[in-house]
Amino acid sequence: ALRDLVGDLHEADLGAVIEAIEPDKRPRLVELLGIDFDFTALTEVDDTVREEILEELQPRTVAEGVRELEADDAVAILQDLPSEDRAEILDQLPVMERVALARSLEYPEASAGRRMQTDFIAVPHSWNVGRTIDYMRETAELPERFYEVYVVDDARKFVGAVPLDRLLRSKRPVPIADLMEDERPLIKADQEQEEVARLFQRYNWVAAPVLDTEGRLVGVITFDDVADVIQEEAEEVIKALGGVRPDEELSDRVWYIARSRFNWLLVNLATAFLASSVLGLFEEQLQQMVALAVLAPIVASQGGNATTQTMTVAVRALATRELVDANAKRVILRELLVGFLNGIAFAAITGVAAYVWFKVPGLGIVIGLAMICNLVAAALGGILIPLALHRMKLDPAVASSPFVTTVTDVVGFFSFLAIATVWFGLR
Amino acid sequence: ALRDLVGDLHEADLGAVIEAIEPDKRPRLVELLGIDFDFTALTEVDDTVREEILEELQPRTVAEGVRELEADDAVAILQDLPSEDRAEILDQLPVMERVALARSLEYPEASAGRRMQTDFIAVPHSWNVGRTIDYMRETAELPERFYEVYVVDDARKFVGAVPLDRLLRSKRPVPIADLMEDERPLIKADQEQEEVARLFQRYNWVAAPVLDTEGRLVGVITFDDVADVIQEEAEEVIKALGGVRPDEELSDRVWYIARSRFNWLLVNLATAFLASSVLGLFEEQLQQMVALAVLAPIVASQGGNATTQTMTVAVRALATRELVDANAKRVILRELLVGFLNGIAFAAITGVAAYVWFKVPGLGIVIGLAMICNLVAAALGGILIPLALHRMKLDPAVASSPFVTTVTDVVGFFSFLAIATVWFGLR
Ligand SMILES: [Mg+2]
Ligand SMILES: [Mg+2]
Ligand SMILES: [Mg+2]
Ligand SMILES: [Mg+2]
Ligand SMILES: [Mg+2]
Ligand SMILES: [Mg+2]
Ligand SMILES: [Mg+2]
Ligand SMILES: [Mg+2]
Ligand SMILES: [Mg+2]
Ligand SMILES: [Mg+2]
Ligand SMILES: [Mg+2]
Ligand SMILES: [Mg+2]
Ligand SMILES: [Mg+2]
Repeated sequence: ALRDLVGDLHEADLGAVIEAIEPDKRPRLVELLGIDFDFTALTEVDDTVREEILEELQPRTVAEGVRELEADDAVAILQDLPSEDRAEILDQLPVMERVALARSLEYPEASAGRRMQTDFIAVPHSWNVGRTIDYMRETAELPERFYEVYVVDDARKFVGAVPLDRLLRSKRPVPIADLMEDERPLIKADQEQEEVARLFQRYNWVAAPVLDTEGRLVGVITFDDVADVIQEEAEEVIKALGGVRPDEELSDRVWYIARSRFNWLLVNLATAFLASSVLGLFEEQLQQMVALAVLAPIVASQGGNATTQTMTVAVRALATRELVDANAKRVILRELLVGFLNGIAFAAITGVAAYVWFKVPGLGIVIGLAMICNLVAAALGGILIPLALHRMKLDPAVASSPFVTTVTDVVGFFSFLAIATVWFGLR
Repeated sequence: ALRDLVGDLHEADLGAVIEAIEPDKRPRLVELLGIDFDFTALTEVDDTVREEILEELQPRTVAEGVRELEADDAVAILQDLPSEDRAEILDQLPVMERVALARSLEYPEASAGRRMQTDFIAVPHSWNVGRTIDYMRETAELPERFYEVYVVDDARKFVGAVPLDRLLRSKRPVPIADLMEDERPLIKADQEQEEVARLFQRYNWVAAPVLDTEGRLVGVITFDDVADVIQEEAEEVIKALGGVRPDEELSDRVWYIARSRFNWLLVNLATAFLASSVLGLFEEQLQQMVALAVLAPIVASQGGNATTQTMTVAVRALATRELVDANAKRVILRELLVGFLNGIAFAAITGVAAYVWFKVPGLGIVIGLAMICNLVAAALGGILIPLALHRMKLDPAVASSPFVTTVTDVVGFFSFLAIATVWFGLR
């Protein structure tokens, strides 16, 4: 009955079912379905959900499930397991599968080698269309789905790729080598997945061969896994900018989330104390003119929002490689001008509002000048800090935001109170 | 010579060349290349760059370039033009192309109809593999690249999709209808592109047929354009959360950017004044105990960062449909607990730090209590506001951030100063 209900589901829908049921019933479902359970479904659930299920299952069960999968899906399931568990599962696999999987797992994390399937069609460069089609008709063990056929030389070195539509529009005697696509950038197994994704997007590849250091074909990356990379990378930027760890998932436990967010908040608390220590320098002045205490957060907050705008654009453009050395100077200059223009605009608005509120002559001019200073600082910090972090090979998405808002808090408080001290001759 | 240099470039590389040269030389390049210029390259550049080039070109030149393109690329180039310019270009097209393009442009913005190509292969359900292959070998005018063949009935209604690899592994006499994929969700031309992208990602489709309201096949969407949608949607969330308009691009002019960012900053200025007006309520107390003025921004800032974390998770999960009605209650509760736990943690840390700094007995307890209040408010605001906006069919990514940080500014300032007033018996 259960088998009738979920046995025929698409892997993605089965994954959704797993996420929807109670956590402690999930391993039961896998066990009950037995060989009818498609382990690909485990690549469709949150990491936490997958890890919790795998912990409960017998290594033998996992090994049997993983055997049926493409290398990239097997790697996705095994790579985050504790190494003893992983070894136990690999031990249960036949030697061929074990060696192949172990090799895939040796490529660096987030590399092409981990994302590739090792099932593909490679034909000798001497074949023609007819022979290639006959081969596909006669061979039972072809990849489940494929989009290109690869041409290799006698040493299994990659020669070229033939999209299936080219094969289908050509007559049987045409040499396969005549159908190869124009030369295109090649992917090495240890290349970063983000770089691979950018190549796919740029050239609209449906699949791409992955080569080892000798130029031998070792696997194939397909568009669907690239779509996942694009999504994951964007997700990382979104989370990083919001101060959330990239691996935080909706299914994580309260305690885990609280701890992981704590770290970020602790960094920000330190920067908040730093900013407030600037206010502390002006205690006397604040006491003499309490309007300054009321208005100072406005200057800081406006700077914080402006610098977040600039930083967001900079971080995203760095991630997509749209912001590079060649245009960095132009973008810096542009941000500076934008900051200055909006500085003047908000100097006027805030100045008038502050004067109307407190009726202190000169207060509008003081807050206006501080606003200009802080929006210029916001522009500079928002663009220069991400650029500097990027040059230092640090991820600007993760590290920028506490720094940039510290700049605007400190410059905002200091410029406002220092200008006020001078203007009003306080203390 | 120019033709030798750039004539053979891939459209994406040609796009990169266009973006790299001086803005006023770009239309010249297109004109010089003449019929060798592949207009697909214009789908690879920033919108601003494309619009500036198209403005300079003769309608006849654009019409000739657009004629060669797939419908989706032609639509991408024409859709943002002022309607008179668009009409002028359409007028220069042969009637068949004009009618087809005009129909594509009539589908709603960001719908499947705008993203589909209208070139595809549809075969009658009575054909077999052999006849289908012969048809492809004999027909000159096939789509440039294709991944599936579609089966239609006598009324051109869609019956099923056959991936090319299935065709290639089957013998010639096999009926084409035997090779059709299992039934899958169907895409209507007016469906939103985001929803289409989610289906592609879920089911790993390489292409999908697009149907009209009668179930007739009118076009095909391919994975490469879906990858662009995924990227664009993520980009929109990133920019919206950072207070930047989704259409802002690196190539935009200073003046345009300054104005578009101004609006967002103006909204935030209003909320900053609102928050400061809470400080204004406590002017007397601030004057009596200036430490309160120095510390208040810390409570507000910590709340702002915590609420940004929660909001980021909520907005992203709403966009990917991971956060739905079914799990909303669980996620709200979880955020509340996380907020409470971190509230206690930061109450302790901030309390000790504040006491050490100012040596005022009780000040640590006051700021600690305020911290707990504000981190709980941060959690509630961070999750409830995006959920509410989503229910009101507003985009939570765009609208959440000013609201949520206003909550934490107001609650932060008010709770801290109100508790201090009571505790120290100020005023
Ligand atoms: Mg998930
Ligand atoms: Mg592309
Ligand atoms: Mg795969
Ligand atoms: Mg996959
Ligand atoms: Mg990464
Ligand atoms: Mg801060
Ligand atoms: Mg083309
Ligand atoms: Mg661009
Ligand atoms: Mg997928
Ligand atoms: Mg297309
Ligand atoms: Mg495209
Ligand atoms: Mg959208
Ligand atoms: Mg604010």
